[in-house]
Order: sequence, then C-alpha cells, then structure tokens
Amino acid sequence: MKDKPLRIAPTPSVRRMPRYLRCLHALRSDRVEWVSCTFLAQRLNVDPTLVRKDLALTGITGKPKVGYYLPDLITAVEKFIGWDNPEDAFLVGVGHLGTALLGFEGFARHGLNIVAGFDNDPGKIGREVAGKPVLEAAKLPDLAQRMHIRIGIITVGARNAQTVADLMLAGGIRAIWNFAPTPLDLPPGIILENEDLSGTLAVISRRLAASDDGI
Amino acid sequence: MKDKPLRIAPTPSVRRMPRYLRCLHALRSDRVEWVSCTFLAQRLNVDPTLVRKDLALTGITGKPKVGYYLPDLITAVEKFIGWDNPEDAFLVGVGHLGTALLGFEGFARHGLNIVAGFDNDPGKIGREVAGKPVLEAAKLPDLAQRMHIRIGIITVGARNAQTVADLMLAGGIRAIWNFAPTPLDLPPGIILENEDLSGTLAVISRRLAASDDGI
Repeated sequence: MKDKPLRIAPTPSVRRMPRYLRCLHALRSDRVEWVSCTFLAQRLNVDPTLVRKDLALTGITGKPKVGYYLPDLITAVEKFIGWDNPEDAFLVGVGHLGTALLGFEGFARHGLNIVAGFDNDPGKIGREVAGKPVLEAAKLPDLAQRMHIRIGIITVGARNAQTVADLMLAGGIRAIWNFAPTPLDLPPGIILENEDLSGTLAVISRRLAASDDGI
Repeated sequence: MKDKPLRIAPTPSVRRMPRYLRCLHALRSDRVEWVSCTFLAQRLNVDPTLVRKDLALTGITGKPKVGYYLPDLITAVEKFIGWDNPEDAFLVGVGHLGTALLGFEGFARHGLNIVAGFDNDPGKIGREVAGKPVLEAAKLPDLAQRMHIRIGIITVGARNAQTVADLMLAGGIRAIWNFAPTPLDLPPGIILENEDLSGTLAVISRRLAASDDGI
C-alpha cells in the first residue's frame, strides 16, 4: 500500500520528468550539488508547486533550505520513469520516419533500446539501418516472444498499422507507440501511446489564428 | 466580445479536434447526415460531456434529438482550427526526420503546406525531396519575409536548434514546431510547440513498470 501514490502518477507529471532530467543532467555537468524546486521551476518556466508535486511522486524528499541532493534526485527520477533499466523495442516500418527513429542516439539515454527494424520491402530486409538489422515483418511475433520484447513502435502508413499491431500482439508485445495517423483496435491492458502530429498542428494553427485576432 | 469563448480555447480541446475531424470525414464517406455527441463520444471512447464542450468551442449548436448537421460541423471544426485555410511553412534540417515530414501527404489535409526544406549540406542543397526544393539555410530569413511564411519546423539536432530558430525569427516566422530535443530561447509572442518524444517514452516506460507491479 505504501507505493500507491507512485502508481497512480498522472500522465502530465510523468511527461514532464524528462524535462527535469535534462535540466538536472546539465546542472550535474556544472558540478551543482543541491537543487531546489524554486530553482528548477524558474529554469523550466513551470510553477514551483507543480515541480514539488511532480518530484514528490518519485518518493524523494528534499531538505529544508537546500532542496534535493542532485545525484539522489537524478536517480529517483530515472528510477521512477524506468530509465535506469532500458527496455528493448522492435520498430516496424523502415521508411524515413522509421529510419530517423532507428538512428536517434538520444533514445538509449531515454530508456529505449530499439534492437531491430522490420519491413516488408525485400530491398530493405537484410540490410542494416543505424547499425540495426532490418528483418522481415512476418518474423516479428516469433522473435519478439523469444527475446521478450515488450515495446513495439509502428511507423508504417495508416493502412497497414492495424496489421502490424496484430503482429506485435501475437509476439506478446505489451506497449505500442503508434506514429501512424489512425486509431488502433487493441485488447484491454495493452499500453498505447499515439504520437498525434495532427493534434499539435491544430494547436499551432489555432494559436496563429487567435494571434491574428489580436490576442 | 462575442468571440471571447472561442479565443481562450483550452489546448487539450484544440488537440482533440483532428480526432473529431477524422471521425466526421469517415462518417461523411458513409453518407451519414446527422451526428450526435453521444455517438461521437462512443466512437472515440471519450466522455460525451467533453465532446459537447469541445464542439461548442467552434460556435456550432446542435439540434435537440438529432445532433449536428454533418457538413456544417465539419466546416465549423475546420474553420475553428484554421484548416480551411492552409498555412505555408518552411522546414529546416533535411535529415531522415525532415525528409519524413516533407513527404507526409497528410499535412496538406491538416492545414499545413511545407513549401521548402533548408539545410547546410551542399550535397542536399539544390535537390528536391518529396517534390519540394532544398535550399541553403542562410537564405531562409529573406525568403520567409518575401513569402510571408509564418510557420517554421525545426528538425535539426539539439546543437543547431537555437541557431535555426534565430534564422526563423529574423525571417518574421511567428510559430515554431520544434522536433529538436532542446529548449529554445524565444521572445514573447512567438508560438512554440515542442514535439517531445522523450515525454511519451517516459509515459510508456512508467506504465510498463506500473503494470509489472500488477496494476
């Protein structure tokens, strides 16, 4: 029961953790040893109360006046979001977007290790992209089971996304990061995050339109 | 004063609009004429009250019992998020991610028309990617001003993102969509949307960790 507050962490708080981490790592490079909520809040342009609540979710407690001991805080945040223990992942759809994701060096530092790409294109199968093998999509379920892969990344077009999701489910994958602009039909219990670029576009054009109106 | 409620539309509501639109377009293909909040809510697995509030932001009013007339609703939502009038945009950083974004056919339907890519690589300058010219980054400010470009997309690495943002500001760009994993220092009034993939990764790994604990 003691862990309950950690478990029901609200998504927006979890989503902010990498920003804290980036800031904390920068401070560590500057040899800072102690950091306060107020300082972090100023640096990130966030409300200090929000920072305090977010960091409390990780289970860490600060010292009055001095704040948090930086190495402990980094460990607590990384542990909270599971980045102390990177997860292996499979990616399906080695087009431009898939290639970009396979090559992002930052993912390894962000708890994600994409170990292979999958595609249906015979011209891609058997090649390497960013040092990772590109395999035939049909082989995914078997390999995912044998390698205990739990995260699948979908970078195919909208038309093939459900088929790919079904392959992933057949392989025992439990979390899907979907870049295809289409809803997926998944059984309960499967973790799904849609990277919805059109939502961001709506926010940008709405804000531009509002600023035209003099807001 | 009458428009005030429209102007202060909350970001999460705006972000949901493209999902409504996708659903509405699908219904139009099926020759549906009238649609209710309850139906949309079921289809999208969202709370009906939320749907009603979101759609009210667009200024449309439904008819009791039958709901909204579909063509009017589509027009209202598209107008609300400015997609009735696509914006031209410049993209800087024609790597894999930039190439993927230049080639996304969906953007045109989502109010965004990327008219050119920019890069510093002489091997890329002068070529075409997805039918769009790749130009020298230094030419951006002048061209952006002459073409009245208001949206800039940053797909360079973290190290060069601020330099690119400064070029965009010099060209009069007013909204920046930043894919580089780094904060940008921008003057007040500039619209900034960070596409924070690490935030999504944190949510996925946290939820996986929580499900390991039997949640």
